[in-house]
Amino acid sequence: MSTFERTHPAPLLPLLYEPMVRRALEEDLGRAGDLTTDSVVPPGATARAALVTRQLGCVAGLEVGLSAFTMLDPSISITRTTRDGHMVAPGDSLAVIVGAARTILSGERVCLNLLGRLCGIATTARAAVEAVRGTHARITGTRKTTPGLRIVEKYAKRVGGALNHRFGLDDGVLIKDNHIVAAGGLKPAVLRARAAAGHMVKIEVEVDTLEQLDEALTLPIDAVLLDNMPPDMLREAVRRVDGRVITEASGGITPDTVAEVAATGVDMISLGWLTHSVPVLDIGLDFDPTGTRKPPSGLD
Amino acid sequence: MSTFERTHPAPLLPLLYEPMVRRALEEDLGRAGDLTTDSVVPPGATARAALVTRQLGCVAGLEVGLSAFTMLDPSISITRTTRDGHMVAPGDSLAVIVGAARTILSGERVCLNLLGRLCGIATTARAAVEAVRGTHARITGTRKTTPGLRIVEKYAKRVGGALNHRFGLDDGVLIKDNHIVAAGGLKPAVLRARAAAGHMVKIEVEVDTLEQLDEALTLPIDAVLLDNMPPDMLREAVRRVDGRVITEASGGITPDTVAEVAATGVDMISLGWLTHSVPVLDIGLDFDPTGTRKPPSGLD
Amino acid sequence: MSTFERTHPAPLLPLLYEPMVRRALEEDLGRAGDLTTDSVVPPGATARAALVTRQLGCVAGLEVGLSAFTMLDPSISITRTTRDGHMVAPGDSLAVIVGAARTILSGERVCLNLLGRLCGIATTARAAVEAVRGTHARITGTRKTTPGLRIVEKYAKRVGGALNHRFGLDDGVLIKDNHIVAAGGLKPAVLRARAAAGHMVKIEVEVDTLEQLDEALTLPIDAVLLDNMPPDMLREAVRRVDGRVITEASGGITPDTVAEVAATGVDMISLGWLTHSVPVLDIGLDFDPTGTRKPPSGLD
Amino acid sequence: MSTFERTHPAPLLPLLYEPMVRRALEEDLGRAGDLTTDSVVPPGATARAALVTRQLGCVAGLEVGLSAFTMLDPSISITRTTRDGHMVAPGDSLAVIVGAARTILSGERVCLNLLGRLCGIATTARAAVEAVRGTHARITGTRKTTPGLRIVEKYAKRVGGALNHRFGLDDGVLIKDNHIVAAGGLKPAVLRARAAAGHMVKIEVEVDTLEQLDEALTLPIDAVLLDNMPPDMLREAVRRVDGRVITEASGGITPDTVAEVAATGVDMISLGWLTHSVPVLDIGLDFDPTGTRKPPSGLD
Amino acid sequence: MSTFERTHPAPLLPLLYEPMVRRALEEDLGRAGDLTTDSVVPPGATARAALVTRQLGCVAGLEVGLSAFTMLDPSISITRTTRDGHMVAPGDSLAVIVGAARTILSGERVCLNLLGRLCGIATTARAAVEAVRGTHARITGTRKTTPGLRIVEKYAKRVGGALNHRFGLDDGVLIKDNHIVAAGGLKPAVLRARAAAGHMVKIEVEVDTLEQLDEALTLPIDAVLLDNMPPDMLREAVRRVDGRVITEASGGITPDTVAEVAATGVDMISLGWLTHSVPVLDIGLDFDPTGTRKPPSGLD
Amino acid sequence: MSTFERTHPAPLLPLLYEPMVRRALEEDLGRAGDLTTDSVVPPGATARAALVTRQLGCVAGLEVGLSAFTMLDPSISITRTTRDGHMVAPGDSLAVIVGAARTILSGERVCLNLLGRLCGIATTARAAVEAVRGTHARITGTRKTTPGLRIVEKYAKRVGGALNHRFGLDDGVLIKDNHIVAAGGLKPAVLRARAAAGHMVKIEVEVDTLEQLDEALTLPIDAVLLDNMPPDMLREAVRRVDGRVITEASGGITPDTVAEVAATGVDMISLGWLTHSVPVLDIGLDFDPTGTRKPPSGLD
Repeated sequence: MSTFERTHPAPLLPLLYEPMVRRALEEDLGRAGDLTTDSVVPPGATARAALVTRQLGCVAGLEVGLSAFTMLDPSISITRTTRDGHMVAPGDSLAVIVGAARTILSGERVCLNLLGRLCGIATTARAAVEAVRGTHARITGTRKTTPGLRIVEKYAKRVGGALNHRFGLDDGVLIKDNHIVAAGGLKPAVLRARAAAGHMVKIEVEVDTLEQLDEALTLPIDAVLLDNMPPDMLREAVRRVDGRVITEASGGITPDTVAEVAATGVDMISLGWLTHSVPVLDIGLDFDPTGTRKPPSGLD
Repeated sequence: MSTFERTHPAPLLPLLYEPMVRRALEEDLGRAGDLTTDSVVPPGATARAALVTRQLGCVAGLEVGLSAFTMLDPSISITRTTRDGHMVAPGDSLAVIVGAARTILSGERVCLNLLGRLCGIATTARAAVEAVRGTHARITGTRKTTPGLRIVEKYAKRVGGALNHRFGLDDGVLIKDNHIVAAGGLKPAVLRARAAAGHMVKIEVEVDTLEQLDEALTLPIDAVLLDNMPPDMLREAVRRVDGRVITEASGGITPDTVAEVAATGVDMISLGWLTHSVPVLDIGLDFDPTGTRKPPSGLD
Repeated sequence: MSTFERTHPAPLLPLLYEPMVRRALEEDLGRAGDLTTDSVVPPGATARAALVTRQLGCVAGLEVGLSAFTMLDPSISITRTTRDGHMVAPGDSLAVIVGAARTILSGERVCLNLLGRLCGIATTARAAVEAVRGTHARITGTRKTTPGLRIVEKYAKRVGGALNHRFGLDDGVLIKDNHIVAAGGLKPAVLRARAAAGHMVKIEVEVDTLEQLDEALTLPIDAVLLDNMPPDMLREAVRRVDGRVITEASGGITPDTVAEVAATGVDMISLGWLTHSVPVLDIGLDFDPTGTRKPPSGLD
Repeated sequence: MSTFERTHPAPLLPLLYEPMVRRALEEDLGRAGDLTTDSVVPPGATARAALVTRQLGCVAGLEVGLSAFTMLDPSISITRTTRDGHMVAPGDSLAVIVGAARTILSGERVCLNLLGRLCGIATTARAAVEAVRGTHARITGTRKTTPGLRIVEKYAKRVGGALNHRFGLDDGVLIKDNHIVAAGGLKPAVLRARAAAGHMVKIEVEVDTLEQLDEALTLPIDAVLLDNMPPDMLREAVRRVDGRVITEASGGITPDTVAEVAATGVDMISLGWLTHSVPVLDIGLDFDPTGTRKPPSGLD
Repeated sequence: MSTFERTHPAPLLPLLYEPMVRRALEEDLGRAGDLTTDSVVPPGATARAALVTRQLGCVAGLEVGLSAFTMLDPSISITRTTRDGHMVAPGDSLAVIVGAARTILSGERVCLNLLGRLCGIATTARAAVEAVRGTHARITGTRKTTPGLRIVEKYAKRVGGALNHRFGLDDGVLIKDNHIVAAGGLKPAVLRARAAAGHMVKIEVEVDTLEQLDEALTLPIDAVLLDNMPPDMLREAVRRVDGRVITEASGGITPDTVAEVAATGVDMISLGWLTHSVPVLDIGLDFDPTGTRKPPSGLD
Repeated sequence: MSTFERTHPAPLLPLLYEPMVRRALEEDLGRAGDLTTDSVVPPGATARAALVTRQLGCVAGLEVGLSAFTMLDPSISITRTTRDGHMVAPGDSLAVIVGAARTILSGERVCLNLLGRLCGIATTARAAVEAVRGTHARITGTRKTTPGLRIVEKYAKRVGGALNHRFGLDDGVLIKDNHIVAAGGLKPAVLRARAAAGHMVKIEVEVDTLEQLDEALTLPIDAVLLDNMPPDMLREAVRRVDGRVITEASGGITPDTVAEVAATGVDMISLGWLTHSVPVLDIGLDFDPTGTRKPPSGLD
C-alpha cells in the first residue's frame, strides 16, 4: 500500500463546504457588495493573479479557498500549481487565477481567510507528525475546532498527516470525569454506554490515574485517554494496557514535549492546539500581469 | 463622558449571533446527539458547574457562549460572575450553571469553543491597546476574521478596547495597490469612488511611499493606510499629512513593535493578528457540586 | 444497571428535530394557512382533544409530534398520558391537548403524520426485538430511512428496543462488494481504511461466502456483515468467527425468518424494513369535550 | 386528447426538489463524508453501474433520485433506460451511471432511498387505479404524506395515475366533523367558508350519515366526502347527490374493497395508504462493468 | 352570521411570517448592529413610544410589524390601541411600546417598513371595496405582489375587505392567451387541465372577446376572466354567462372606473394595483414619555 | 472620467440576489408547481417571448428579473436588447427569451414582479435626478425599502442616478431626535458616537432648527440632516454650514418641490418615496413567434 492516504485524504465534496463558503462571501460582501472594486475597476478589466505563500507550509483547502472565486463568477479560470498535502516555500505560488479583475479583487479576502487558516492547521499538524516520526504514535485532534468550520478543519488536520478523533458528540463514546461522577462510577458508566451504543460505536474512557486505568481495563472498552500524565506515568500506563485497548495521551502536551510523549509508546496523541490556537499561514494574492511568478519549489 | 463605551460596547443582539450558535450546536451534536451523555447520565441528574479560566484574560462573548446551554434547554439556570470587558485571573469563574447534567455536558464544548476564542481575541486586543496607552494611536482590526464569525470577532475586538475597521467590502472604500493598477492610477480611482459612493461612505487609500502619499493628499480622501512603512517613514508621513486626513499604519506590525509604531503619531494601527492567529483563552467547565468555587478576583 | 436504556433512550433534543417539524408545518400551511379552520372556527373557541391510538403499538416521538402544536401556539396546554417506549392499546390516549380550537385543528395533520410514522417504526422494531428474545442477537437497522427524517427514525428504532447502525456514511467504515472491486481486493480495502480511519472508527466488512469470511478474519476488522446467508451458513460463519469480531446477519430477513436467523448465534441482525416499508400506527385526534376519554391501559 | 397527462404528469421542476435532495445528502454524508469510499476507492477509479429493480413496479422520481449523483458531481454521466410512468420488471435497469466510482458509491443510498419510496408510491397508486378501471371512479390521495416529502410524494401519486387532493391546508376548504362542532353547525360553517374563500377555492364537506348529506346538499358546496360509509350507503348517497356536487369516498377502504367502493358510482376515492404505509420498491445499484445489463422489458 | 370574516380575517400565524421579519431585521442590522443607538443610548435607558398614523387608513399587519420589537427583545411591553381591520385617523396611535430605548430605536424602521406597506394595501383595498358597495361585485387581487411578501400582502388585502385570488401557480388553473396558443386551442387546453387537475381545483379561462367567451362556455370551466373589456362588453358577457360560471373583470381598471365596472354585474373585479403600486400609509414612531398620546378615534 | 459610474453602477453579483429570487420562485410555484402550464402546454413546446414595456422608463434589474427563467431552466436562451440604466419607450423590448414554453410561462410572473418594481424605482429616481439637474444637489434614498429587497432596491436607485444613503443601521451613524433625547443632549450623543465608531464611520446629525444646527456645527460631525425645513431655512442653513460638513435635506419633499429644495444649495436630498411608494413600471411578457418585435428606441 502506498502512503498516499496519509498525506492526501480524498478531496472534500463541494456539497459539504459550499454553504460555508457562501456564508463567508455573504458576510464579506454585505448588502452593497464591494464598494471599492465596483466603483474603481472598469467592468471589462481582466487580471492575472497568483496565490503566493510568504511562509513555508503545507497546502490544505486549496479547492475550498478557490471556490470563493468560482462562486462569484463561474467564468474565472484557475490553474493549480500545487495541491493539498504538498509543501510550499516562501514565494511559491499555489494557483494562478485569470479573469475579471473585479471577481479576483472581490473574492480575495474570503479565499485568503479560508486558505490561510486551513494551511496553518495542516502545517501545524504536519510539524507534529514530523516530531513523532520514528515512533509508534499517531497524531490526532480534538473537537476544539472553530464553530462552523469543523468539516474543513478536520480535513486540514488529515492533510497534515494527523488522524481524526470524533467529529462530534454523536460518533463515538468518550467518558470523561464529569460523566463518571454523574453516572455514579466508572463501571455503571461503561456498562450503560455499551448497552446503548450500536455495534459500530467505540467507547473510550478518560483516566487520570493508574488506579482508574486498572479499573477501566476490567471493563468492555476500546480505548483509554490518559489525561495529563507525565511521561513516566504514560510509560507505565502503556505497559499495563499491553495492547489490549488503544492508548491516547492528552492534556498539556506542547510542541516541545510531543516527541517525549510519543516515546512513551502510546498509540495516539491528541493535540487541541492543532485547531484552537493555530496561526494562519501567511498567503497573499499578487497581481502578476506578466506571468513571471516563480514556480513552486517542488517540495513535498 | 465616562469611558464605558470603550471597554463595554453595547451587548450583541442575540438575533445576530443565534443562528451561528445553532449551527455550532448542530455541528457538534450531529444526527445522534451526545452518545456518551445520553447513555451514561441519568435523565433526572442535575449538576452545578462553573466556567473557570486557567489564564489571565479579558472576558468577551460570555452571552454568546452561554447561549449554547440555553438553546439546548431554556430551563437551565445561569449566574454570571463577571461580564464582557472585565479581566479574570486563573481560577476565576465567569459563570455558574445549574440544571440538568445532560444539558451542561452536551453544551460544554460549543460554549467553550466560542468563549475561548472570543476571550482570546479580547485579551489580545486589550494587550495591544495597553501597549499604545499614552500615545495618540488607537488600535483597529482587519477583515482577516474567521469565516462565519465576523460579527462576534469584531465585537470581541471592541470589548478588548480596539475600534473596528470595515465590517465588509460594503461599508467603506479602501483603495489598495491592485485597485490602483486596475483603475490606471490613483487619481481616477479616487475620483470614481467619490462619484459613486454615497455621502456617508469614507474613502481610504493605501500608500507604500511618501510620493504616493503626496499624490493622495491632493485628492478628496478621508484616510490613508500607510502600508509596511518603517517608523521613521511613518513619522514623516504623519508630518506631511498634518491632520488633514486620518492616518493608519498597517503591515508587519508585531506585538513587539506596536508601541514604536504608535510613537510615530499615527491615528490608527490595524493588526490582522487580533483575529487571524490569536490563541484561545484557556477556559474550562468544572463541575462544582459544593459551590465553593473561588469568586472572581475583581480585576478590570 | 436497570434496563431503562434499552427501551427508554434519552429524549431527543428539540434542537435536533424542530427544524424538521417547522418544515412540515410550513409544508402543510403553505402561504394562506388553514383556510377551513380560519374561516369556520371562531377566534375565541377553545377545545379539548386527545391523541388516541386505534391500534396496539409502541409509543415513539410523542414530543416530536406534540411540538407541531406548541410551535404554532406556545399557549397550548398538553397533558401526556403515556411516554415513549410504552405500549398503548386501541382506544388509549397518548396525550390530551387543551387550548385554542384553531391551533388544534391546524396542527393536527402534521402531528399525526409524524407520530404515526415514528410509532409505526417503534412498534415494528419492538416486534422484531420480541421475536429474538431469549437469543443472543440484537436487532439493528440500516441507512434505509426516509430522506430528511433519519434523526427521528433512528430514535424511534431505539425506542422500540433496537440498536442503531451507522447514522451516515461518516461514522463507521462498512466495506461492501463494490468497494472491494474498486479497491482491487479485500486486503487493500481493509488496510487502506485502517490507515485512514481515526482510532474511534470501526471497520465492518460485508462477506457473501465463507471463503471471503476466512480472508476477512485475517485482517484488522471489527465486524463482519454476513450478507444473504442461509441459516446453516450463518451458523458455520459464527463458528468460524468464534467471537473474534462482531457478526451481523443481513439481507432477505423477514419477520417470519428473523427468529431462525437469531438462533444461529449471530450478534446483530439488521433489518431495512424497520424504516423503509413500515406501516404507520393508526393514531387519530379526537375532540373530547367532556374529558371522559379512556385512560391508557398501562401496558408496557 | 391523448392519455399522456394521466400517467405522465409534467416533470417536477428541480427547483422544487433540490433542497430536499441536498438535505438528504447532507444527512447521509454528515461532517466527514463517506469514510469507506474515500479511504478505500482510488481517486481516479471509474465505474459503470445500473439502477436495477428487483420487483415489478411503476417508475417515479427517476430524476429526483438521479439528482443525488449530479449534485455530488456534475461530471457524472447518466443514460436513462426508462422514465417516470413506465413499468419495469425484475432485472430491468432504470438508468446506467458512468463516472467516478467514488461519486457512485457515495450517492447510492440517497438515490435509492428516494427512488425506492417514490416508485413504491407510484406502484401502489397504479394498482389502485387498475383496481377501479372500468368504473367512473378516480383515485386520489390525502395529506397523510411523509413530512418534508409532500411535493415528491404527491407527484409520485400522479405518476401512478391517481389525482391529487389538497396539497395543504391552504388550497381548498375541507370541513370535517370537528370544524362543524366548533362552528356550531354545518350551515354556519359552510356559509362562513363561502364568505371568506376566494372564488377559486372549492369547498368540500365531510358527512357521516345520509341526513348530514341531505343538509349539505342544501348549502353552496362543491364536493362531499362520504366518510366511512359501507357500499350500500355510498350507493344511496350517490343517488341523492345526483351529480350536483362531486362525491368522494374515504375511510377504511382497503386494496380488497376499493373495487367494490368504485362500483357504487362515487366520483373520487381517497386512499391514505398510498403514502403513509406504502412499501418501497426494491431497487438496487449494480456495478456492471461490461454493460451487459438486461434492457428494460418494454412494459407500460 | 356576522360580517367579521369580511374585514377581520383570522390572524396570520407567526410561523408564517416570522422568517420574513427575521430576514428584514438581519437586513437592517447587518453585521455590526445599530451603530448609532448602541453608542449613543445608555444601556439602561427605557422609553415609551407610540406608533402613530399621519394619514387616514385601515390597519393591517399590526402583529407583523410589532414582531420586529419582540424578536429583538422578548421583554418589550406592547399595548395595542387598535387592531387589524379598524380605521385610524391622523394622530391616532396604533400601539404603545414600553421598554428598553435601544430596542425601540433599533426595531423602529423594520416595524414601520412592514406596517406602512401592509396598512397601505389594506387602505387601498378598502377604498376599492367601498367604491363597489351596493353592487354584486367583490374585489380580488392578483399575484402581482412584492417578491417575498405574498403571504402578508395577501393577508392585508383580505383585511381591507377584498378576497384573494390564487396564492400561486399551484392552487388553481388560470388559462391565459399564451397557454391557449401553446396548447393549440381553448378546448384542448381546458380538457387537458380538467384531466390533470384534482377535484378540488377550479379552472378559470381568460377571454378577450365575446366569441371566445361563447366557446369557453361550452367547456367544463368554473370561471371566466373577462380581460380588458369595456363596460358594455362586460355587461353583455355577464348576460351570456347567465350565472353558469363566475365572471371576473380584469385589466385596465382604475380607481375611477371600478364602480362602473362593478355596475356591469360581474362577480369579481381583480386589481393588480392593490399590491404592485400601492403607496405606504404614513406611520411614524413617536417618543411619548408622558403618555398623553391622543387615543384612537374609534373609527371602523 | 466618463459618467458611466453615475447611471451604470457595477452589476449586482448574482450571489447577492439569487437567494431572494429563489424564494420568490418558491413562493409562486408552491408545492404543486404551475398547474396550468404543466397540464396544458405540451412538454416539447418551445416559444419565443419578449419582455416589453408599456411605459416610458429606466431599465433596472434586468439580470435580476431574467434570473427567474434561468433558475428554472439553465437551457433557456436570452437576448438582451437593452441594459440597466437605459431608457425604454412604450413598445420597446428589453429582452427576448427563447426556449421551453413551460419555462417561460412558469417564470413570467416572478420576473415581471421583480423587474417592474426595480424599473419603477429607477424611473422615479431618474426623474428626481432630472428635476435637480443643473443644481449642486444629489439625490439619495432612505432605509424605507421593501423588507427583503433592500439590496436590489438600493441598486435600482443607483441605476436611476441617485446615490445611496446607509444600507442599514450598521454602516453609518445617524443621530435623530429620539437618540438625542435618550442620550441627554446632542453633545454627549455625538461624543459617544465618535468614541465608539471606527475611523471609517461617518456621523450625521438630524437637526430641526437653526439653533440645533449651530450646536451641531461645534461638534465633530460629518453631515447634517436638515429635517422638514422650508426652502428659506434650508438656504440659511447652507449658508451657516459654509461647506464645513455635508448638508442633506429631508422630510416632506415632493416631486413638485424637489427642484426648489435643490436650489437652496444643499448637497444631498433624501427621498423616501423612491422606494416606499413607487409605482411599478408596466412591463409585460409578449409571445412573439415571428420575432417582429419593435427594437428598442435607443433612448438613454
